[in-house]
Amino acid sequence: MSPDHSNGDCESLHEPLLHSERSRINSTSQVAIVGANVCPIESLDYEIFENELFKQDWRSRGKIQIFQYLFMKWVLCLLIGAIVSLVGFCNNLAVENMAGLKFVITSNLMLQRRFLLAFAVFFSSNLVLTLFSSIITAFIAPAATGSGIPEVKAYLNGIIGSISAVSSSLLIGKAGPMVHTGACVGSLLGQGGSKRYGLTWKWLSFFKNDRDRRDLITCGSAAGIAAAFRAPVGGVLFALEEMASWWRSALLWRTFFTTAVVALVLRALIDVCLSGKCGLFGKGGLIMFDVYSASISYHLKDVPPAIILGVIGGILGSLYNALLSRVLRIYNIIHEKGIACKILLACLISIITSGLLFGLPWLVSCQPCPVDAVEDCPTIGRSGNYKKFQCPPGHYNDLASLFFNTCDDAIRNLFSENTDEEFSYPSIIIFFITCFFLSIFSYGIVAPAGLFVPNIVIGASYGRLVGMLVGKNSTLNHGLYAVLGAASFVGGSMRMTVSLCVIFLELTNNLLLLPLMMLVLLISKTVADAFNENMYDLIMKAKGFPYLETHAEPYMRQLTVGDVVTGPLQLFNGFEKVRNIVFVLKTSRHNGFPVVDEPPYSEAPVLFGIILRGHLLALLKKKDFLPTPMAMGDDAFSKFSADDFAKKGSDNSDDIDDIQLTEEEMDLFIDLHPFCNASPYTVVETMSLGKALTLFREVGLRHLLVIPKISNRSPIVGILTRHDFMPEHILDLHPLLARSRWKRLRIRLPFMDKIF
Amino acid sequence: MSPDHSNGDCESLHEPLLHSERSRINSTSQVAIVGANVCPIESLDYEIFENELFKQDWRSRGKIQIFQYLFMKWVLCLLIGAIVSLVGFCNNLAVENMAGLKFVITSNLMLQRRFLLAFAVFFSSNLVLTLFSSIITAFIAPAATGSGIPEVKAYLNGIIGSISAVSSSLLIGKAGPMVHTGACVGSLLGQGGSKRYGLTWKWLSFFKNDRDRRDLITCGSAAGIAAAFRAPVGGVLFALEEMASWWRSALLWRTFFTTAVVALVLRALIDVCLSGKCGLFGKGGLIMFDVYSASISYHLKDVPPAIILGVIGGILGSLYNALLSRVLRIYNIIHEKGIACKILLACLISIITSGLLFGLPWLVSCQPCPVDAVEDCPTIGRSGNYKKFQCPPGHYNDLASLFFNTCDDAIRNLFSENTDEEFSYPSIIIFFITCFFLSIFSYGIVAPAGLFVPNIVIGASYGRLVGMLVGKNSTLNHGLYAVLGAASFVGGSMRMTVSLCVIFLELTNNLLLLPLMMLVLLISKTVADAFNENMYDLIMKAKGFPYLETHAEPYMRQLTVGDVVTGPLQLFNGFEKVRNIVFVLKTSRHNGFPVVDEPPYSEAPVLFGIILRGHLLALLKKKDFLPTPMAMGDDAFSKFSADDFAKKGSDNSDDIDDIQLTEEEMDLFIDLHPFCNASPYTVVETMSLGKALTLFREVGLRHLLVIPKISNRSPIVGILTRHDFMPEHILDLHPLLARSRWKRLRIRLPFMDKIF
Repeated sequence: MSPDHSNGDCESLHEPLLHSERSRINSTSQVAIVGANVCPIESLDYEIFENELFKQDWRSRGKIQIFQYLFMKWVLCLLIGAIVSLVGFCNNLAVENMAGLKFVITSNLMLQRRFLLAFAVFFSSNLVLTLFSSIITAFIAPAATGSGIPEVKAYLNGIIGSISAVSSSLLIGKAGPMVHTGACVGSLLGQGGSKRYGLTWKWLSFFKNDRDRRDLITCGSAAGIAAAFRAPVGGVLFALEEMASWWRSALLWRTFFTTAVVALVLRALIDVCLSGKCGLFGKGGLIMFDVYSASISYHLKDVPPAIILGVIGGILGSLYNALLSRVLRIYNIIHEKGIACKILLACLISIITSGLLFGLPWLVSCQPCPVDAVEDCPTIGRSGNYKKFQCPPGHYNDLASLFFNTCDDAIRNLFSENTDEEFSYPSIIIFFITCFFLSIFSYGIVAPAGLFVPNIVIGASYGRLVGMLVGKNSTLNHGLYAVLGAASFVGGSMRMTVSLCVIFLELTNNLLLLPLMMLVLLISKTVADAFNENMYDLIMKAKGFPYLETHAEPYMRQLTVGDVVTGPLQLFNGFEKVRNIVFVLKTSRHNGFPVVDEPPYSEAPVLFGIILRGHLLALLKKKDFLPTPMAMGDDAFSKFSADDFAKKGSDNSDDIDDIQLTEEEMDLFIDLHPFCNASPYTVVETMSLGKALTLFREVGLRHLLVIPKISNRSPIVGILTRHDFMPEHILDLHPLLARSRWKRLRIRLPFMDKIF
Repeated sequence: MSPDHSNGDCESLHEPLLHSERSRINSTSQVAIVGANVCPIESLDYEIFENELFKQDWRSRGKIQIFQYLFMKWVLCLLIGAIVSLVGFCNNLAVENMAGLKFVITSNLMLQRRFLLAFAVFFSSNLVLTLFSSIITAFIAPAATGSGIPEVKAYLNGIIGSISAVSSSLLIGKAGPMVHTGACVGSLLGQGGSKRYGLTWKWLSFFKNDRDRRDLITCGSAAGIAAAFRAPVGGVLFALEEMASWWRSALLWRTFFTTAVVALVLRALIDVCLSGKCGLFGKGGLIMFDVYSASISYHLKDVPPAIILGVIGGILGSLYNALLSRVLRIYNIIHEKGIACKILLACLISIITSGLLFGLPWLVSCQPCPVDAVEDCPTIGRSGNYKKFQCPPGHYNDLASLFFNTCDDAIRNLFSENTDEEFSYPSIIIFFITCFFLSIFSYGIVAPAGLFVPNIVIGASYGRLVGMLVGKNSTLNHGLYAVLGAASFVGGSMRMTVSLCVIFLELTNNLLLLPLMMLVLLISKTVADAFNENMYDLIMKAKGFPYLETHAEPYMRQLTVGDVVTGPLQLFNGFEKVRNIVFVLKTSRHNGFPVVDEPPYSEAPVLFGIILRGHLLALLKKKDFLPTPMAMGDDAFSKFSADDFAKKGSDNSDDIDDIQLTEEEMDLFIDLHPFCNASPYTVVETMSLGKALTLFREVGLRHLLVIPKISNRSPIVGILTRHDFMPEHILDLHPLLARSRWKRLRIRLPFMDKIF
């Protein structure tokens, strides 16, 4: 039995990230306590822990209670949807108003040709916002670690930090923090509120189990995407494709409900804003980057450029991933040197960003305003395609139109139609290169940051470039090339397919482009897969999360379960001495222990079930011990209730050292039978490792018991946990495999893992 | 051990149906041989049958071969996509041209006021088309049963039958047959072509295993939906939500690829048609029922009508399902009386349909043409909102505009904007009632029929009615009410959520309506779930398919596996006499047999693995027997190859009675060890039944071995198959449970099954 991961393998999470969400909800029962900078990573389990108490509890529940449970779960989903959409909306509102104000002030100063003052305002406001967001992330969030309810703080921190960071012109997105926020809300509601803040509800205690909590976190993440991109169906699919590997149709239905609530609430809030009550929020509707055009048509000759875009997207996307994971490793080293270093790094990035954004537009020459421009040229006010910057009247600076804007406005600019002549080659090339590297360096700093929006910006810029190169040979306008470019780059770095496709549909409202979009996504993912893994997996590796792959590696078919089970095994007897239990709990960090009945209590040694550390602690705390090893019988039901064993919130988990027992108590006994999961999943030691992994993943297990083939030995051989399936562990034990051609093949053919 | 389903529980399938596809791909390894009217239902298995031969085979495969395998699987998906989209397109083209011609001729006759002749043409063409489609379905398809490749025939039959049936004005759709066609194409390619027709390819033999074939069938079904509705993303989600309960991310990626091919091919074909080369096919683009309107806005006051639509949809949808399953049961009785009865029934329905469609429009009064009509009034040519029918010049018959059209045109008419005054209350009510009942009675007749399009028609008609009732109090136009109504009815009868939402998005190209659409779908599904099950499940029950539910019933938590394992168990020894094998194969219909090693060949009786009937037959056929019970060793690999045990196509499965053995051969031995799956999934007899079901479903098993808890007995207790998990079987064994409150509760709270 390898050490469980309950305390071991965690590193501090520096900011709320999409990928950490994913590792939380990842199938193999590894779900971190939600909240930034929280350690250790806690596992959640999809398996229902069926002990006698659980069965008794369900038998005794009346119709009303069951109805209440079901009803409340839907109410929780409703709440999650409503809260997340409100938060997302306020987030957007704040960003638009803060960044908008900044741009309005600096643009006015530029119009008055007071360039230095404009730069000073731009520079200092960016620096202050970055400082603010990195300081609250660095100070408040780590402090939340042990404080009780990391969720609430992390959630507030995530949002405020994200608002200031995004407003500060750093090239970062808001989708990641929104997903994190959604997951936090789900987890917070799922754990029954927080005792410390008096936010507890009796009925929430229904949901104190791993499965319900994991469901709610999944709903929360889906709501996060739905709110960030106003893409409800995309949110469901994102949660399905990227987050939850363990999926049930009931969960599909539930996430759909949650994102429907998000869509309705967002729609209502936008209705309010359309009447002009939201300041600089503008008139953005439900579609963020609307490129609908009834007249879209394309022909065979547009397919080759789309294929080229796909290939470029695949190559650049995998390059981006490789660079990003290297930069993150360097940042990790810097971050270990202390908070001051973290904040200095953030400030450095902010200074460089401000300098580049303000300085680079001076390098390109001013363009005369087009005669047939649909909108004002140069732009008056904040949003628009033609920023005047330093140019003489009747001219605009095309690079400033991209740089001197929020990411959202830059994307709208790149996606716009009837602007095929707007950008010059130097501008678009400078913009692409700057964004590519800035976004890599901006991601790892101490501030809540997403990658989705920056990726869209990068992709849109080279998409536009390809459009300009193809020129008149195409029936598509350059805005649509930018859309395809964005899809190709996101596909090349994130490697999602269906969910990305739907998110792009919902972002751009252009269904007619769907066939080309699918083509581009297919090609970019295939090309990128040939080089490295997807972004989230690489980041997770860089951060040291133990994430279990979906597919069995081919060499696992050649090994048996017995080949990887290691280490001494800690067992309990059905009637166990308190002293032994305390000793084992103190000396091992395992999380689950097999329980065995031995003669004289059974004919032969026989495996009874498995008991969890948390349940043993609850038993010890109750101090209801027996003088002799005898069966408790129905006493168990009268003395204990299922609530005693309910999942604890992250703020009040028990510890063995907190339980004080006298010497007399130490010599008493506990009857473990009623509290054991008497139906653990088991595999025979000769089972192929690949098949055991399938079982482990598909059912969503945390422990898998290995039983002997020949029955005249001990009734149990060992326990498999997630760690025993990690390729590193297996290849450690069987170094020959590491050099086998399977391993080599794996590198050459990344789609290899799909053969089984 | 209960009897396996290999020959037992099948009834003739009268026509290719969506739901039979579903039962094929359904998780619990029940997949029928694809093809109309094929019996018995064959099971496919997602578990990889890992015997020594399989391992040896993979070890010996070179990189080139593995690469070839992977590459070819993608090529197959490409082929499936291309073929299905071509078939779908030709299908559409034929329907539009045939039905179009019919309507053009009759409309011209009507204009000349030769009403009787018009009716005669209409009536007789409908009858002839119905006769044709029912005759080819009734004669050719059943004949295909044993003939070798039911797939090709069923596929041709499905398509031609569907074209004539849909053209014959019957109220049936083409989505179901398209899904069936897609699945057929997938299965045909997956089984390596057909020997009889000389359509075999060497490389296709790679895919002769259950998992690959099931993957390809899933891709084919997704392609079918994608082609029928020109909804590629909807197709992927449909396959995900409705068809495949066992889902892997690789499969998502593969179905996405297939539907992308469909989208690209369809787009190219439509390009050809837009240049006017497709006869009466018209100018339909990629969006079938385009209701895009940039100016859509709705406010809080539009939410109550949407909620009302959802409730109506739920009630009507469940009523529809209940009536449909009753009518199907009656039809089953009629169909058993012979082919003549089947065809007579089809003709009767056709006659009634023709009569109603032609007769009912006479009942309503003619409407004067609106002054501000966007299009010609009355309609000239075929498609249009204002059919003249019997009316004087300058007038139109609103009911004829709906009835005297193909389903697609009627839907376009109902969905159209700026036509709020077009329909009168009597017309729309007559139309709704007629469609509701006609579609129920048209479904079960002997012709390839779908339900999706008729459901849209029904829903759109009452949606329009609600829109008319709400009138000026709403900001939505009546066309959008029709869209919401259609969504509510389909949601209420089919009970899908995400996939339906995306299919409707792709059908109507209206993303702004998404929040209301989600609301309507949520409500209609919830309301309908309170009354009965979804349409496919009800039809499957009416047809007698054993379909396993996704969720464990609550009472399964109170039972153990040992409580349901029944019957005598047939075992083999590791070294078994040929005579015994032949005897067992002849006397039992089981499909898998546990193999046990007993002293003196092992220390104690020990379970070695499981062997399949098909593999035993292959061994007997090869006649490579051993004189004494001894290990074959590496001989097995030289004498047998994995190909010998490859999945047989449905046209050449072996039968025990075909194998002739001499008396001497009967006394020889076979070493079963190298051919056994030595890693079967096992559960201990005390395992809870609910958990065993989870394992069975999630891993996609066909057999689950039950091993004893205490080890001093036989090493195996029994085998669980799908049948052992069926509620009927369990409640038979434990009649008390049937009367328990769990059972009653289940009926009252249909969403009960989601609590675990």
